[in-house]
Amino acid sequence: MQIVNDFLWKKGMKVEDLLNSYASLGYQSIELAKAADVIVKMKKDSAKIFLTFTSNMVTSGLRGFFAQMASLGIADVIVTTAGGLEEDIMKATGEQFKVGRFDSDDVELHEQGVNRVGNILVNNESYMNFEDWLMPVLDRLYQKKKRWAVSELLREIGLLLEDENSILYQAAKNGIPIYCPAITDGAIGFHLYLFQQKHPDFIIDVVADFGNILLSTTFDEKKGVIALGGSISKHHAILATLLNGGAEYAVYMTTAHKTSGSMSGATTEEAKSWGKVKDESDVATVIGDVTIMFPLAMIKALEELESEGLLKKERADSEKKKGTLQEHVNQHAKS
Amino acid sequence: MQIVNDFLWKKGMKVEDLLNSYASLGYQSIELAKAADVIVKMKKDSAKIFLTFTSNMVTSGLRGFFAQMASLGIADVIVTTAGGLEEDIMKATGEQFKVGRFDSDDVELHEQGVNRVGNILVNNESYMNFEDWLMPVLDRLYQKKKRWAVSELLREIGLLLEDENSILYQAAKNGIPIYCPAITDGAIGFHLYLFQQKHPDFIIDVVADFGNILLSTTFDEKKGVIALGGSISKHHAILATLLNGGAEYAVYMTTAHKTSGSMSGATTEEAKSWGKVKDESDVATVIGDVTIMFPLAMIKALEELESEGLLKKERADSEKKKGTLQEHVNQHAKS
Amino acid sequence: MQIVNDFLWKKGMKVEDLLNSYASLGYQSIELAKAADVIVKMKKDSAKIFLTFTSNMVTSGLRGFFAQMASLGIADVIVTTAGGLEEDIMKATGEQFKVGRFDSDDVELHEQGVNRVGNILVNNESYMNFEDWLMPVLDRLYQKKKRWAVSELLREIGLLLEDENSILYQAAKNGIPIYCPAITDGAIGFHLYLFQQKHPDFIIDVVADFGNILLSTTFDEKKGVIALGGSISKHHAILATLLNGGAEYAVYMTTAHKTSGSMSGATTEEAKSWGKVKDESDVATVIGDVTIMFPLAMIKALEELESEGLLKKERADSEKKKGTLQEHVNQHAKS
Amino acid sequence: MQIVNDFLWKKGMKVEDLLNSYASLGYQSIELAKAADVIVKMKKDSAKIFLTFTSNMVTSGLRGFFAQMASLGIADVIVTTAGGLEEDIMKATGEQFKVGRFDSDDVELHEQGVNRVGNILVNNESYMNFEDWLMPVLDRLYQKKKRWAVSELLREIGLLLEDENSILYQAAKNGIPIYCPAITDGAIGFHLYLFQQKHPDFIIDVVADFGNILLSTTFDEKKGVIALGGSISKHHAILATLLNGGAEYAVYMTTAHKTSGSMSGATTEEAKSWGKVKDESDVATVIGDVTIMFPLAMIKALEELESEGLLKKERADSEKKKGTLQEHVNQHAKS
Repeated sequence: MQIVNDFLWKKGMKVEDLLNSYASLGYQSIELAKAADVIVKMKKDSAKIFLTFTSNMVTSGLRGFFAQMASLGIADVIVTTAGGLEEDIMKATGEQFKVGRFDSDDVELHEQGVNRVGNILVNNESYMNFEDWLMPVLDRLYQKKKRWAVSELLREIGLLLEDENSILYQAAKNGIPIYCPAITDGAIGFHLYLFQQKHPDFIIDVVADFGNILLSTTFDEKKGVIALGGSISKHHAILATLLNGGAEYAVYMTTAHKTSGSMSGATTEEAKSWGKVKDESDVATVIGDVTIMFPLAMIKALEELESEGLLKKERADSEKKKGTLQEHVNQHAKS
Repeated sequence: MQIVNDFLWKKGMKVEDLLNSYASLGYQSIELAKAADVIVKMKKDSAKIFLTFTSNMVTSGLRGFFAQMASLGIADVIVTTAGGLEEDIMKATGEQFKVGRFDSDDVELHEQGVNRVGNILVNNESYMNFEDWLMPVLDRLYQKKKRWAVSELLREIGLLLEDENSILYQAAKNGIPIYCPAITDGAIGFHLYLFQQKHPDFIIDVVADFGNILLSTTFDEKKGVIALGGSISKHHAILATLLNGGAEYAVYMTTAHKTSGSMSGATTEEAKSWGKVKDESDVATVIGDVTIMFPLAMIKALEELESEGLLKKERADSEKKKGTLQEHVNQHAKS
Repeated sequence: MQIVNDFLWKKGMKVEDLLNSYASLGYQSIELAKAADVIVKMKKDSAKIFLTFTSNMVTSGLRGFFAQMASLGIADVIVTTAGGLEEDIMKATGEQFKVGRFDSDDVELHEQGVNRVGNILVNNESYMNFEDWLMPVLDRLYQKKKRWAVSELLREIGLLLEDENSILYQAAKNGIPIYCPAITDGAIGFHLYLFQQKHPDFIIDVVADFGNILLSTTFDEKKGVIALGGSISKHHAILATLLNGGAEYAVYMTTAHKTSGSMSGATTEEAKSWGKVKDESDVATVIGDVTIMFPLAMIKALEELESEGLLKKERADSEKKKGTLQEHVNQHAKS
Repeated sequence: MQIVNDFLWKKGMKVEDLLNSYASLGYQSIELAKAADVIVKMKKDSAKIFLTFTSNMVTSGLRGFFAQMASLGIADVIVTTAGGLEEDIMKATGEQFKVGRFDSDDVELHEQGVNRVGNILVNNESYMNFEDWLMPVLDRLYQKKKRWAVSELLREIGLLLEDENSILYQAAKNGIPIYCPAITDGAIGFHLYLFQQKHPDFIIDVVADFGNILLSTTFDEKKGVIALGGSISKHHAILATLLNGGAEYAVYMTTAHKTSGSMSGATTEEAKSWGKVKDESDVATVIGDVTIMFPLAMIKALEELESEGLLKKERADSEKKKGTLQEHVNQHAKS
């Protein structure tokens, strides 16, 4: 049995060293170190990994890290919400978000045309620029076909973005599907609605996409879920893996607690009821803010996976889709 | 300024008395009493009320209470998630959920074919019965037309249910639209997918439904949001009211805190940034479990609204749709 | 097994009715209803009840309710912190606290000489008046004897207060000891220090008081703990009962979660490890704000205990200590 | 204004690098990075630093880190609770705690004589060994004098411990007082009580110690508070600095939220009401588990302080008190 060890700082300490200390420190630090281990385990066991996150995490700087998860081959399937996708596009097209304060004067911010997400600030202008960018894209996609599964649409959009830190771009480039079961729940929903008003035969097919997520893994493949935050992103990945026989591995990170019966607070204890988790060492629930927790556990896992040659090589080439982008930019300029 | 008053029990105390005491008690009890006041205020001001809740609340006994909110004219628009709708149907068709424990042995429950949602237990069989019930309904709806906005579909389903405690039934009967921006995120998603496999021209049109929620109120109408829990239900109601000029009143109840920047934890402070909230007395955020908090605040509001004749009369008549139901039951028996 | 029941509002609903509904509603409402049952159980089984609460609860209007717990014979032993005792005295001597807001401008409040405890406001003046009141009391007590166990001191102070809503007064009047293991952690600590500077042989004997709490129940007596909030109040009651063989019943109410390993978040699960809890129905942990939760559970328990004649009769007589008070007031006027 | 930056992993990442990224990441990561900055600021400004922590943190491996805070000159005053001191002594005298699980079977653990603190396990035997160690120490101290302020007693005990990772030892060695306003709230309370039964003139003087903490800094000295967790440790440090003019700097780390009005959840916003905090950049509140948060922020601060030569040199010499220890060990062996 592991002894609780006194933690001591040493000069120049690496994140990996700290995580090694966390394993015998106490409370959530132990769970966090375990989360890193479970991620390594699922990767080594060649499980297909469902990575889910909520939109506020994309508002934060985790956005680049999620894109890196795609480029390094950590995520095989991504599930998120509409807001996150919009903000990924905004950043890819040059918008910047700013660090603010939780206790800002919201009336004043409103007058300045600023939206607040916790302690992050987003200008209203960014939403307008997003609209300007999206509309010609929808035009072009509509010319291709009339009926789109959400993940197909997102793949096409991803291919248009020329930003290595974009989730949509890296996912598209690396053949990783992104599922968004509530695509209309955001500004994009409004734009799709306006577009459909002009083109009534334009259809977003969410039902087809449910088939796509089901078929994104087979019943026999091993599966792992890394769910950051709660909401339908987490629920959708659990549902999809469950209908496909259940996941063997699960890591949940959340600030919610199980005591209210919410999906956000559901722990990996429950994952044992799927019947495929073999033992306690295959699941971990970490309570805490994901902007702190996920980098910590993931860096530890990445260092270990890298040393064993289990990371996908990040490719410098973004050439092959550049033509596509240029084409779009030109078209956009003309519109 | 209100003085903090010593609370004293009196024999036979009513919920309304308790809430009156809460207003000068302290911490969340003050916020809860304020929530009741804001609900009364929005109703008196004839605001259109968006009521949102998460699926785990429908798993709980709040389900009947939400149906009552529809029949009493409290809710004008309902937003929720797929799981809640499924469970409303399950209960309406005779399924029962049981009180369990948070720290159950999940492996054992799995072997018994039982799902756990916090301290509530749902048999797998209930999901199978749900499938048996739903499939012939989809057949009939498909015969009517091929392309359905989600809220249209839900209205038709509601009309088939013969349960005064059903949210779908009371909403349909009282002309209250139910929006579910992620309709495929549940067992129903799987059934829709299977159905579409057989009938590729069957379409669930989420984009059209975004138009419907936008048009469910006008820009000039006053609006109020009662958001229970977080997730996309809350986000979708806020989005829909914002695009329509913003809400004048807001009550949020949640166990989440604003410190993680999540939608679940977003407070009504932010609501002030919409520019339409006139003052502090028009918004309230209550931190706590909704199964306790919502009945408390709502009972106080109902007693007050009732005494002022502002509640819709509950109608005993469920005659007019009985033919429809019978028809369905017959068809179901034959299938 | 209990079925989850649809909750419905009925006009004029009593708190007792609501609690009956909570038992089959879901999540924390179930736990809350259970807490009421456990309190009834411990009382019917003649257990000695340790009631613990934190200082912020005395700042709130729960103060009068705690006094009522003493007068009705619910509490046999009280454990709390210095701040709560000070504020009980302040209120008994005429101070009033006000309802404020969580997001007040603290710099402004500071300029106005106002302290904020969550959404409750306390004037600095109240602390000064407390000092003026306490100093002559210490003088008189010192004349009686030089060395005081904390609970002895608190009993004497309680006898001087002429307020039926005072915890110290009702406890003293009803022979209920109040333990405060950190008596110096408050303004009273400063006053005791100043007094000791003048009278170096004045001693507050905390060690003797530990003996007193141990001997306040016997090893053979049945014991129950009602711990509201966490901190040393909760810890001290658990420690005292543990050293005396353990408690048979426990109800904890807290906003803290077990995931950080804190005493505030420790659940009654742990209580089972004391070896005396017979089964699951003897313990309950409720997550939520105590200003809402405690009145709810307690009112239900009081109604039931009252109907069975198990409450102590509240006495109107405050005569016998009036002379004492008058004497003090006179002396105070002269000083 | 700071831009939110996309976070990217780089191989071999140091904790310091990660904290630099946190500053522009989002939500609590921003607050955590700020906490590190505030700690550096208070140290550079030569503020006297009050470090407070709860007992469960000493149960964890943070114990060695707290001792290091003493040896490196970060803490000038320490405030904690009885349990933490006991466990520091237990570890210094050879006891080991083990890593367990939050959802252990507590009845089974009880049968094995094991206590659980969250996911850490402590053997009952450790408490017995603690008693065996403490009793002869009390005998010796009693021979020195009869009346002890708590911090004097703790200093003497610290000098007896020969463990560089002991908080009591490093504090004693480095002249840092440890205050414990509720010294009887633990096993040590029971031992003190038993000892006093034999020696009625043995007195623990908590009132005198309140004077000591007040005089541990002057009104004119700059002061900083680093409060980890809540409870009376946090309250006592705030009280002591307030009575001495207020602190200029404050860092709070806690899992509690301000919404319940508890001391544990009180934020540094309130610190601004003390009138000495100059601006927003002098205070930070981090929501999260201290076993993860404190090492992160502190390592960043230590790296920076070390590079500027602002850390006290850790001394290898433990010679000067060795005679004392040997003496004690001999005496202990004979008893």
